[in-house]
Amino acid sequence: MEMLPKTGEYAFMAPPFHCDQHETLFMGHLGNDMLNAADFHSNERGFGTHYLQTIHHTWVLARLAIEMERMPKAYDKFTIRTWADDIKRYFTSRNFEVRAEDGTLLGAARSTWAMIDTETRKPADIFAINDGFIINYLEPVPSTIAPLARVKLPADAEDAGSILTHYSDVDINGHINSIKYVDHLLDLWPAAWHAQHAVRRMEISYVAEAHGGDTLAFRRKQTADGEWLVGISRRTASGDEAECCRCKVIFD
Amino acid sequence: MEMLPKTGEYAFMAPPFHCDQHETLFMGHLGNDMLNAADFHSNERGFGTHYLQTIHHTWVLARLAIEMERMPKAYDKFTIRTWADDIKRYFTSRNFEVRAEDGTLLGAARSTWAMIDTETRKPADIFAINDGFIINYLEPVPSTIAPLARVKLPADAEDAGSILTHYSDVDINGHINSIKYVDHLLDLWPAAWHAQHAVRRMEISYVAEAHGGDTLAFRRKQTADGEWLVGISRRTASGDEAECCRCKVIFD
Repeated sequence: MEMLPKTGEYAFMAPPFHCDQHETLFMGHLGNDMLNAADFHSNERGFGTHYLQTIHHTWVLARLAIEMERMPKAYDKFTIRTWADDIKRYFTSRNFEVRAEDGTLLGAARSTWAMIDTETRKPADIFAINDGFIINYLEPVPSTIAPLARVKLPADAEDAGSILTHYSDVDINGHINSIKYVDHLLDLWPAAWHAQHAVRRMEISYVAEAHGGDTLAFRRKQTADGEWLVGISRRTASGDEAECCRCKVIFD
Repeated sequence: MEMLPKTGEYAFMAPPFHCDQHETLFMGHLGNDMLNAADFHSNERGFGTHYLQTIHHTWVLARLAIEMERMPKAYDKFTIRTWADDIKRYFTSRNFEVRAEDGTLLGAARSTWAMIDTETRKPADIFAINDGFIINYLEPVPSTIAPLARVKLPADAEDAGSILTHYSDVDINGHINSIKYVDHLLDLWPAAWHAQHAVRRMEISYVAEAHGGDTLAFRRKQTADGEWLVGISRRTASGDEAECCRCKVIFD
């Protein structure tokens, strides 16, 4: 396979009907654009889900932090650049940069991905794939944003409600879409809050997958001015409860 | 302003993270692509929301019918063609065609739009806009799919649950996104149903707008094999209840 540049760059735009009432692209749509960019980048380079599914492997998003100085507005064109800045046996680190059409940096993101065997659901050795050729795409350019902090939700976090998940929450991987948690998380704040405050930074650590029909329960604790920790747990129809995501949101 | 072709054609693709568990584009994403195509088409031709907002007018979607023979699958490129096939004083009719990259017709849609004054929320005279120049873009090519039938939900329709709307349901127009009703509507059927049945046709008549924080209540009645009528009403926080949408869904 021909070598491509280590960094991939993909063009997007903010369609008006992916924008909120303030003509600002929804964070969830931006997040999905990032996942799609990661998918395009890895598939073009031969280590994406297209190839992996032939050997019953897949990538699983473990951690995601997004930090935005400015969100794209309706009709804005923007690009997402993405590269793998660290590749270990069981994890890769992938960075993102979001730039306006004129090149201005709008924000950045960093993410950690595990490779799993889709039959055993256990971690798989990334270097065992095609003799570890993925290492040719290592681009050790660090992210400009801080790594995820360890988030521990305090015991006195308030109950912030729950939602039942449905067909539309489940993506191509067969479980609740990683970014749907972002939508549901930001829905904890009313429109009037979002009218006054933009998300400056958000972090999510994915602890366990949830499935369509599970209930997602939210607990939340304000930790500073404009800053919250949020825990999401899933409850299955049979009553099993497990921690699902640990999140941190900082609003301007 | 330079005349453009009466029909506009826009390129889309089905990003993997806009696809369901069966690698099929969500109907809601296709619907949003159609709304975006309508928006691009009308803005490029000088009668879109860009111009209308300068004179405190906007388009409001009144009716939408989508009929799909085949939905785009993950990574498929497709085009949406759209044109105005009828223009009356208070309504325009707009058609859509969805075609695969090789030109195969995947499906079609038809829609009816009213123009309103955003201050009075009353219908506005479409021909009063720029001396009725919109008529230059009339392309009287009829849709290949049947018009919307008048849907009347029978009194014995079953209660199909309700959901609370949030920040993520509200679009750039400041009310519940027209296509979010499609997502919520299709969520009435479990993933296992969607695994076996594709939506062949769906119709929505928009009766009244709902706002973020309203509860949407669903009532449903099966009227034939694979065919349902669904009524959606909104309940405001103060307890006001009003009919919101009348829908019909036909599954394969």
